[in-house]
Amino acid sequence: MKLKHPLIFSSILSGLLGASLAAQAFEALPEKAPAPADNPITEAKVELGKQLFFDPRLSVDGTVSCNSCHNVMSSGTDNRPVSVGVAGQKGGRSAPTVWNAAFLTAQFWDGRAATLEDQAKGPILNPIEMGMPSAEMAVERIKAIPEYRAQFAKAFGGDDPVTYDNIAKAIATYERTLITPNSAFDRFIKGDKKALSAEAQRGMQLVESVGCTACHNGANFAGPTNLPVGQGFYQKFPAFTDNAYVSKYNFMDDTGRHEATKDEADKFMWRVPTWRNVALTAPYFHNGSVATLDEAVRVMAKTQLDKDLGEAQVRDIVAFLNSLTGEFPQQSMVRLPTTPNNSTFATK
Amino acid sequence: MKLKHPLIFSSILSGLLGASLAAQAFEALPEKAPAPADNPITEAKVELGKQLFFDPRLSVDGTVSCNSCHNVMSSGTDNRPVSVGVAGQKGGRSAPTVWNAAFLTAQFWDGRAATLEDQAKGPILNPIEMGMPSAEMAVERIKAIPEYRAQFAKAFGGDDPVTYDNIAKAIATYERTLITPNSAFDRFIKGDKKALSAEAQRGMQLVESVGCTACHNGANFAGPTNLPVGQGFYQKFPAFTDNAYVSKYNFMDDTGRHEATKDEADKFMWRVPTWRNVALTAPYFHNGSVATLDEAVRVMAKTQLDKDLGEAQVRDIVAFLNSLTGEFPQQSMVRLPTTPNNSTFATK
Repeated sequence: MKLKHPLIFSSILSGLLGASLAAQAFEALPEKAPAPADNPITEAKVELGKQLFFDPRLSVDGTVSCNSCHNVMSSGTDNRPVSVGVAGQKGGRSAPTVWNAAFLTAQFWDGRAATLEDQAKGPILNPIEMGMPSAEMAVERIKAIPEYRAQFAKAFGGDDPVTYDNIAKAIATYERTLITPNSAFDRFIKGDKKALSAEAQRGMQLVESVGCTACHNGANFAGPTNLPVGQGFYQKFPAFTDNAYVSKYNFMDDTGRHEATKDEADKFMWRVPTWRNVALTAPYFHNGSVATLDEAVRVMAKTQLDKDLGEAQVRDIVAFLNSLTGEFPQQSMVRLPTTPNNSTFATK
Repeated sequence: MKLKHPLIFSSILSGLLGASLAAQAFEALPEKAPAPADNPITEAKVELGKQLFFDPRLSVDGTVSCNSCHNVMSSGTDNRPVSVGVAGQKGGRSAPTVWNAAFLTAQFWDGRAATLEDQAKGPILNPIEMGMPSAEMAVERIKAIPEYRAQFAKAFGGDDPVTYDNIAKAIATYERTLITPNSAFDRFIKGDKKALSAEAQRGMQLVESVGCTACHNGANFAGPTNLPVGQGFYQKFPAFTDNAYVSKYNFMDDTGRHEATKDEADKFMWRVPTWRNVALTAPYFHNGSVATLDEAVRVMAKTQLDKDLGEAQVRDIVAFLNSLTGEFPQQSMVRLPTTPNNSTFATK
């Protein structure tokens, strides 16, 4: 299968969105993320969500937290090809970074969750991730911890504040604080012309001239950030299939968004991933099959644009991508609420 | 097997150590831990050791860090009966808390490591814990991370600072900062007579009159803290075996220190565990078989002192033990050193 017009999808989108898309090829990362009207950011929710994010009690056996696979002390991923959930089970796709995920208009590799709130509900109940048998059991687990009850009351109010929706809302609120501003690139486009090396500046020109920014544009280099919530920005991958990379890296073993929607039109469609901090999130692609960033650049040029880059071009683009590593905010370590005199996990 | 003189071991020790042992039944927790002469505490080592403690790259597949089982965001344990290591493997014994471990004169349930340094070397190489095939591989793993190389040079100096010994020294140094002072009990014995409830004060009298403090004495309630490094303070458990608890909780499936030394005299000998923060470290005992603190108190009275406590006595002792929950210091979240453009874990 070889597409004659691999850029057809972004062309359609460009048409729909008008000139604003092209104008946003290079854009600084905002310092604040948008929040949905029904889940405004509050300090109480951020603090609660941070505890939940780090709390392995949200997994069935107390061994896996959100942070296990989306390590915010590091790249927001586990830097593994695929993650390991409860009982040593391996997932099917590589964990995407949680850093700057707040700027995506759809979550997961296949965009099957519209919001961070929807996303947070998935892994907790996924049998090979955190393995909770039901949302009710997750709620009971958290409700049994007195200090959590008090915090949910403070953050959400109401008669019965510990709900699965509110667990997800708190986690999503914390995640909206996970932003890495002030990368060398951001400083450069804000006017500090010394912020980028000559190599990175050549790379910046290349990603546009080669065609990468047709999809990797906008503040998060993951497509337009002003799409309606949940719409997502999708592209076919691989677009060009008659090259050695496709079989070498097993790119067609997973049909992408099609696996979620069962719609033939979604076969091999994927939500465009962010370039922010991409230098830190190896290994690459939905199956984590590509070990290094330079190889990922070669693969993308070939599979998406049918181009063979020279080594100097690859080096320059890698230098540019490294300039997208941002500043990770200092955070305090959480204290997890305790259950004096007993444990959630009483039996082997 | 029923011992006629279950307290014979502490009696011998009392004889050896003289009156100082009895005098230290109740003692405040120091705010600083002792450090060995060859590994003084420095800020560079604390910071480095903290990163290593939280770094899952010290496990073979990047899924388990020291913190996975010794969660310093919580009780310093995983609050599971036994821990889960790489590939979902379960350990044989319950993870002891890392909080205040610096005050113990021997590490592990069986005291088989003399120091925190020795202890830190164990789990990394244990095939069912962090699963590193060799110390050399652990060193190579860390050495491949540029920012770690720089930090080891700063912390240790010398031509080849990234060694397995230095990895252990750094982790141990961080662990020496994990101290929880100013519990209600500490404030009480320093003169704040309102710090303990009437219930806890009755419990405090009971642990002495019932006989618990024959072993659970000293600043860490784990026996004398001034023993020679590595000696440890051991007791037989269970001392009285003709009660229902022993079979119900499978206490004799594990021969304790004997499994490490193969010495018949060490059969069922265990290093006395700390009471500090014991209310937070359920489930209890070396096999994590006892879910609640009140049951643990009943079990200990029966198996070690052949006494049946009344429910009011149990309540009072539990109240006293809760007064030993200290203040957990505020910590900053670590940033783990990165490996731009590639990952330690490149293949599935």
